[in-house]
Amino acid sequence: FGLKCSEKLYEAQSPFQKIEIFDTPAMGRILILDGCFMVTQKDTFIYHEMLVHPAMNILRAPRKALVIGGGDGGAVTELVKYKSLEEITLCEIDEMVTTSCREFFPEVSSGLEDPRSMSAFEDGAAFVARHSDYFDGVFVDSTDPVGPGKALYEVSFYQSIKNSLKKGGIAVFQTESPIFMADVFSETVAKLKGVFGSANAIPYLAVIPSYPGGMWSFTMCLNDSEPLIPGSCDISPEILQSLKYYNADIQSAAFGLPQFVKALAGI
Amino acid sequence: FGLKCSEKLYEAQSPFQKIEIFDTPAMGRILILDGCFMVTQKDTFIYHEMLVHPAMNILRAPRKALVIGGGDGGAVTELVKYKSLEEITLCEIDEMVTTSCREFFPEVSSGLEDPRSMSAFEDGAAFVARHSDYFDGVFVDSTDPVGPGKALYEVSFYQSIKNSLKKGGIAVFQTESPIFMADVFSETVAKLKGVFGSANAIPYLAVIPSYPGGMWSFTMCLNDSEPLIPGSCDISPEILQSLKYYNADIQSAAFGLPQFVKALAGI
Repeated sequence: FGLKCSEKLYEAQSPFQKIEIFDTPAMGRILILDGCFMVTQKDTFIYHEMLVHPAMNILRAPRKALVIGGGDGGAVTELVKYKSLEEITLCEIDEMVTTSCREFFPEVSSGLEDPRSMSAFEDGAAFVARHSDYFDGVFVDSTDPVGPGKALYEVSFYQSIKNSLKKGGIAVFQTESPIFMADVFSETVAKLKGVFGSANAIPYLAVIPSYPGGMWSFTMCLNDSEPLIPGSCDISPEILQSLKYYNADIQSAAFGLPQFVKALAGI
Repeated sequence: FGLKCSEKLYEAQSPFQKIEIFDTPAMGRILILDGCFMVTQKDTFIYHEMLVHPAMNILRAPRKALVIGGGDGGAVTELVKYKSLEEITLCEIDEMVTTSCREFFPEVSSGLEDPRSMSAFEDGAAFVARHSDYFDGVFVDSTDPVGPGKALYEVSFYQSIKNSLKKGGIAVFQTESPIFMADVFSETVAKLKGVFGSANAIPYLAVIPSYPGGMWSFTMCLNDSEPLIPGSCDISPEILQSLKYYNADIQSAAFGLPQFVKALAGI
């Protein structure tokens, strides 16, 4: 996948990864970490909406949310739309990602200015391991399982996440491309089923054009609650009006998996 | 979007377009027409399954089907799975596409060997205009609206298609990318609504990794039948077992459209 770039706005080597920001005619402004597309002005809303809203639709009056990774602030920007949330923590290992996104993607990172949001710039696995029975929702906005994102694909991390959740809480993981990272998708879903229970780790899909192959997976993991395929949508009209991808139809359609994805997920 | 190619197997300039066939490590063997990806071994099954099966699931004992374009034979290969069909016509303007696909993609084009299938190598618009109240299903497997595919985006063509259908028949059109061809998608759906009626032209989506942005649209058009969002799946287990993308969940999930796609489709 390639794009014509009109201008390179920023380049830095953080302690963790190479950060680059460009302006492009086709996708608007883009953020690239270690050569992988992370944020584009044209379609990043899809990733952040679909990481956050399917689970928020199910949680009842959640008070505490955690985003791990997601230094661009996009997931936090979706979360601050929910009035019941009192505490929204961003735990990002690489502060330079957040600093550069605040400067170059202010509309994506705007939620970080909300008084209920706070940032912890440290290793997400270590951070979550210090919390128990605490969060209603945890959103794991990881990079690929290489470099700084690797620790976010280990069973011990998934166990810490489960332990950090309140009973009835939900964790959502981005679980890569079922097409070009089919083995990672399959292994990650299997690990999550092992930790949360087979019926409580439920993959769903969104289409993110700037990611390889377009088809992207998330897996929703329910902590000690009844297994369900979420069908109805109870999100307020005010929030729905602000969204460009998620809607009531997508809440159920996203969980309808192609046959080869079901096979990879052991369904 | 780019791919490493290991070998160029075929190149020809037909009277209509440039035809190229390569072997690639990432997508297997691929067919390129005038520079656009048309068939890849890795994911072409998605396009053909999703063009054919959602409508075939709804039709009751259809006897006559027409594929316009689709010279690779992939749509015909899906159609021959249905025993009720007595006559399956492929109308492809460019015989060289079919000849080269028979040689280089025998598993895709295999349906063309079925005794119920026949091929007409001529302009699809002229062919369909000679038929009235004849087909149960028409599947328009067009290229982009440039070059030989342009005539397949005109209102007069859509009217001919409607006229060629039996009462209760269904036509399915590939209607391009709602992301990178948003204007074509929007205009085409509007034209189809104009011809078939607003509630009878229903867009749906599939993810085709080798197409730009991955998200691809089809529009199902019902001729003089009750409007419906098809929910249930009645396809035989024998056929379902042969499919890698379509299944009962996809039959409904494919019709769940992201908010920005609904807006483009005037829904």
